[in-house]
Amino acid sequence: MTTVTPASTAAVASELVGLCREGRNLDAIAELYAADIVSIEPIGSDEMPAEMHGRDAIRQKNEGWFENNEVHAVEVAGPFVGEDQFAVRYDFDVTNRPSGQRMQMSEMALYTVKDGKIVREQFFYHMPGA
Amino acid sequence: MTTVTPASTAAVASELVGLCREGRNLDAIAELYAADIVSIEPIGSDEMPAEMHGRDAIRQKNEGWFENNEVHAVEVAGPFVGEDQFAVRYDFDVTNRPSGQRMQMSEMALYTVKDGKIVREQFFYHMPGA
Repeated sequence: MTTVTPASTAAVASELVGLCREGRNLDAIAELYAADIVSIEPIGSDEMPAEMHGRDAIRQKNEGWFENNEVHAVEVAGPFVGEDQFAVRYDFDVTNRPSGQRMQMSEMALYTVKDGKIVREQFFYHMPGA
Repeated sequence: MTTVTPASTAAVASELVGLCREGRNLDAIAELYAADIVSIEPIGSDEMPAEMHGRDAIRQKNEGWFENNEVHAVEVAGPFVGEDQFAVRYDFDVTNRPSGQRMQMSEMALYTVKDGKIVREQFFYHMPGA
């Protein structure tokens, strides 16, 4: 069996967490996401399907989220590192601009790394009071 | 500053995952959970509060879950290891006995380790079609 040595999962994880702690989520997408990344949310809608494909679509989704939400604080815990996957916990304190509603939410993201790039992200939610 | 060297987070994580892969979840609770563990689910009810305290309460919750659900398959991914926390992903294929409804669900658990025991577990859900 031949294997290709990928960039270390831990290195990609550390870089992602560092950028997100600085609020540089869009830089993280540009630098660390594979062009054909798959992103999976727990719940989809007509405008925002649960499964999205491609770095450009994910970047637009993130830009839209930051436009719609005023971020008062975000805490980034981790990374939690496995073999070809790692997890990160995010705690947000945000105000949704259209509704004016302030809310706190926690989520965990599970990332899959291949050849030094993130090829898959999947989100798991914890919403107090939901 | 004095520090107490805890049993490695990775060692506890590996032990938990090994037991859960064998379906020995109750053994994992008995062996690895601190007596005063805190368990946090995303959503609570009158019968099952979101936040529960104590190993005995958590064991009863787990026993109840296994009584109410027929487990066809479970996949345990990870562990994903951080400093004093680690994450595990679980994918269940179960039939809820009271309703007869079969469903697939994914969750991530984030565990906090202190002095070689799990002192906190928090669950994050991904339910396709929810």
